[in-house]
Amino acid sequence: MYDGIVQDLIDEFGRLPGIGPKSAQRITFHILQTPSFDVSRLSTLLGDVRDKVHFCEICGNVTEQERCSICRDARRNQTLICVVEDAKDVSAIERTREFRGLYHVLGGSISPIAGVGPDDLRITQLMQRLADGTVQEVILATNPNLEGEATATYLSRLLHTLEISVTRLASGLPVGGDLEYADEVTLGRAFEGRRAL
Amino acid sequence: MYDGIVQDLIDEFGRLPGIGPKSAQRITFHILQTPSFDVSRLSTLLGDVRDKVHFCEICGNVTEQERCSICRDARRNQTLICVVEDAKDVSAIERTREFRGLYHVLGGSISPIAGVGPDDLRITQLMQRLADGTVQEVILATNPNLEGEATATYLSRLLHTLEISVTRLASGLPVGGDLEYADEVTLGRAFEGRRAL
Repeated sequence: MYDGIVQDLIDEFGRLPGIGPKSAQRITFHILQTPSFDVSRLSTLLGDVRDKVHFCEICGNVTEQERCSICRDARRNQTLICVVEDAKDVSAIERTREFRGLYHVLGGSISPIAGVGPDDLRITQLMQRLADGTVQEVILATNPNLEGEATATYLSRLLHTLEISVTRLASGLPVGGDLEYADEVTLGRAFEGRRAL
Repeated sequence: MYDGIVQDLIDEFGRLPGIGPKSAQRITFHILQTPSFDVSRLSTLLGDVRDKVHFCEICGNVTEQERCSICRDARRNQTLICVVEDAKDVSAIERTREFRGLYHVLGGSISPIAGVGPDDLRITQLMQRLADGTVQEVILATNPNLEGEATATYLSRLLHTLEISVTRLASGLPVGGDLEYADEVTLGRAFEGRRAL
């Protein structure tokens, strides 16, 4: 235990996800003992991220403007929407450079245990985007876990009333992974989704 | 990759020790998406830790005053000084509630590879504290690794010119640990330092 400010800052860092008491202490002492670490820059960015960053009014991705850079980009395929749970997923998919359509961030997944129902997600906004008939395919890219699958199932039922093709990302063995270490469900999915060569 | 501020804050968190790109992203989105997280409190503490926290003029521990709470406490045993590498070590020892003497923080350990010599550590200040003859025992509590041992050896030679007893923390098996998982050096030390029951 430390006196005053040092302990307060350790506690504050400890409130952040993935930072335990030991890490929080290490970070605090690093800041304290490293004159080259720009404390004011971190403080400014913390304020800015709250004041200037918000969610794109169309897709729900993070942006400093009204619409995010992807929604503003006319070169993106406007007939294709990839539905994800979280803005972090947009970044993950963008890194693959495989997808050139638009996104829709739900802001979570259906989870009765966590008390999250369909009304808590940006599903109404998705339906509005699909209303004008531009979009031809919706790719459901929610997480391949219980909540993500439930959300995908819910959405696919909802979307089947529209004349839009609805797809789901493939489940299977991770590339570079070892078959012997794959869990049964993943391995089962890999068989189910096997492709002709 | 994100636009502007979000990526800047991710990069800034990524500069902190023990925070990789994924953690930095998770922390940034937590701050962005958790309205209850008090950004201004963290910012204020970051500034305060730089402006108001410094090192005790006597022992080198962290404090918001000229002297730390341990050096100010007259009830502590003034004849006993525990020498540690870092202010974090003071906190670790305080948690044991086994030690009621004073501390001396060296500010590192002798490491030719890192270019840290005896002159870079607070050794002169230690010698000054020992000059008036109040202190009867110096406990060398540098880390039980190569640099810590070298520092302890250097200090013990230096202190043997004075009429002060110099001791070193015991090395041995960690309590609650498994003998079969102990490394050879630790196990060897445990034999060497065995005690009569």
